Amino acid sequence: MDQKIIVTVDVVLLTLVGERLEVLLSRREREPFAEQWALPGGYVHAVEDADSLAAARRVLREKASLTSPYLEQLYTFSGATRDPRGWSASIAYYALVSADTLRPASPAPFELWPVDELPRLCFDHARIVDCALERLRSKSAYSSLPCYLLPPAFTLTELQQTYEHVLGQKLDKSAFRRKLADFDFLEVVKDAQRTGSHRPAQLYRIREEKNLMLFDRTI
Amino acid sequence: MDQKIIVTVDVVLLTLVGERLEVLLSRREREPFAEQWALPGGYVHAVEDADSLAAARRVLREKASLTSPYLEQLYTFSGATRDPRGWSASIAYYALVSADTLRPASPAPFELWPVDELPRLCFDHARIVDCALERLRSKSAYSSLPCYLLPPAFTLTELQQTYEHVLGQKLDKSAFRRKLADFDFLEVVKDAQRTGSHRPAQLYRIREEKNLMLFDRTI
Repeated sequence: MDQKIIVTVDVVLLTLVGERLEVLLSRREREPFAEQWALPGGYVHAVEDADSLAAARRVLREKASLTSPYLEQLYTFSGATRDPRGWSASIAYYALVSADTLRPASPAPFELWPVDELPRLCFDHARIVDCALERLRSKSAYSSLPCYLLPPAFTLTELQQTYEHVLGQKLDKSAFRRKLADFDFLEVVKDAQRTGSHRPAQLYRIREEKNLMLFDRTI
Repeated sequence: MDQKIIVTVDVVLLTLVGERLEVLLSRREREPFAEQWALPGGYVHAVEDADSLAAARRVLREKASLTSPYLEQLYTFSGATRDPRGWSASIAYYALVSADTLRPASPAPFELWPVDELPRLCFDHARIVDCALERLRSKSAYSSLPCYLLPPAFTLTELQQTYEHVLGQKLDKSAFRRKLADFDFLEVVKDAQRTGSHRPAQLYRIREEKNLMLFDRTI
């Protein structure tokens, strides 16, 4: 077996802060690239991790105290030159969480950065972030994916705004509501309303059996 | 680095034989699973392969004498139990070729099998084939992907039939032709016609600048 290959997982954790998508970065503690900004990640632990998904979950748990965000394999970035330690493969994942979930848990060495104002990232992590944003945006047009950027219960207005911020375009309210009814992946949260300066708004959540739903046309 | 991880590439090479999708399989020459059917694949060669795409190209070149099919990363299958030799990651690719291209090049230990009549496959290769078929079918509805199952020049009727065989549904001819005109990714091959028992049919090819084109709605 003529190989000595480094296998890591890296996670692009995205959240929506106001109208902006932000990504979790940390300063690396060790060489190579000590002190520089990177995605949370690390070696796959062959003894401990059942598979790469388990490794990604462990990274999120250890590095961002997160236990169950939306998590999906993104792409594997590999090659002889991306890591100075040798031929490496990073099995990259992306995760979505609501800002509420993330904020209190995020320990000091981690920071959220707006995706369009990133610092210089080490390895090929800038490319990995780009790939995750492209996946999020293209998949959001045809699926319930943006729901995972919201808390478990949300108003339809909040959901529409989330789609708009992710897709970068305004959506027509009545067409949006009609499609939500057609796609039928939400349910009313009983006795829960958002109160505010305006009249109370009904809260919704994803129907349990519906996890990620793919639509047959754009939202 | 508490790991000793096996890194391989495996390729799901698909082609259309008549109306059926078929996949290239080979009998393994070595243990584990010697003599059993598997996808073409092998270890990443850290010295030789610039990245996993180069490794997949090498596998196709060495094992199926193919140099430039459509080739795309599919998914990385990993874990402690999928390979008896230890924790392993297979960076899986799928490739599309026309049956014409494949037939003369395919050496003896390789055989095409219809995707719905596969023999028992070793490792998790049956799952990898399923994943490739799902990707092909879902992506074909929104892209020019099925073109890569055809020879470089084809008639519009051949293209429609290819979409139909991949998607498993009949398409309306006039709607199909209208969408081809809208999506505008084909060009006429000058002075080339398919002659046969009927009147000659114009041949088309993918416009060079258009490689894989994603549509904004289904074909």
